[in-house]
Amino acid sequence: MTEAALEIDERLRADTHELLECRGVLVLVHRNATLPWFILVPLPSVEPWRELFQLPADLRATLLDMSDRLSRYLLEERGVDKINLGALGNLVPQFHWHLVGRYRGDPCWPGPVWGNLHTCENWADQDLRQLRDRVAAILG
Amino acid sequence: MTEAALEIDERLRADTHELLECRGVLVLVHRNATLPWFILVPLPSVEPWRELFQLPADLRATLLDMSDRLSRYLLEERGVDKINLGALGNLVPQFHWHLVGRYRGDPCWPGPVWGNLHTCENWADQDLRQLRDRVAAILG
Repeated sequence: MTEAALEIDERLRADTHELLECRGVLVLVHRNATLPWFILVPLPSVEPWRELFQLPADLRATLLDMSDRLSRYLLEERGVDKINLGALGNLVPQFHWHLVGRYRGDPCWPGPVWGNLHTCENWADQDLRQLRDRVAAILG
Repeated sequence: MTEAALEIDERLRADTHELLECRGVLVLVHRNATLPWFILVPLPSVEPWRELFQLPADLRATLLDMSDRLSRYLLEERGVDKINLGALGNLVPQFHWHLVGRYRGDPCWPGPVWGNLHTCENWADQDLRQLRDRVAAILG
C-alpha cells in the first residue's frame, strides 16, 4: 500500500483493491468482481475533497481524463453496454468517483449498483494483476 | 416547451419540468419535489449523446460549469449536506447528468435516489416559478 492510500477513508480501502496511484489520483477497483467497477480518489492536499466543484482545476482535469480513458477501455475492451458514473459520498464523504461498466442483463440491470448489487465474486489474483497492468498502460 | 426539449427522450420529459435552455444544455428539475434534483441534458447535434467522454470539449465544459454553479446553490442557499452526481442511463440511454441535493435524514438517506426514493411531492406552481428565476440568474 502506498503512503497516499493511507490518506483515504478506511471504508473505501476496505471495499477495494488498490491498482495504482497516478498524477495525484488513486485508482481503486471494487472488491466485488461481478462488474468492472473503478473508484477514483483525487488525493487530498490538506483535508479530503468533498465535492467535484471543489477540486483544483488541474486535478479535476486529470480525474476526468482518467475517467474518459477507463470508459473507453470498458466499452472497447470489456464490451460493456453502458458506463455508469457517480459521485455520491453519503456514507463516505471523501470525494470518490465511481465508474462502473454495465451489461444489459447484469445482476442489477437496469438499477444502479449502489445498494443494489447483491451478487458478489472475488477477484482471482491473476485477473487482478492483469487488470493492474492494463490500467497502468492505459493511464500511463 | 422549446424546440430543444423535443429532441430529448420522452421519459426524461415525463419525469421532469423544464426550467430553461442555456448554452446548449437543457436544465430540468425532477417532478418529485421531495429533494432538489436537477437533470442536465446536453442537447444533441446529430444524435443523442450517450457518454460523458463523447461530449465535445466546449459542451462538456459548459455542462460541468453549470453543475458547479448549481452545486454551490444547493449547498449555500438550500442548505443541503451533500451533492450527489450521477450519469447512469441504463433506462434512458440519452446522456443526462443528475445533480441531487441530499439532506442527512432525507427519505432515502444515505441510499442513492435512483430506484430508492419512494416519497413523492409535487412542485407548487409558485415554487417552480421561483426556482426557474433563481436558476436563470445563477446560470445567466
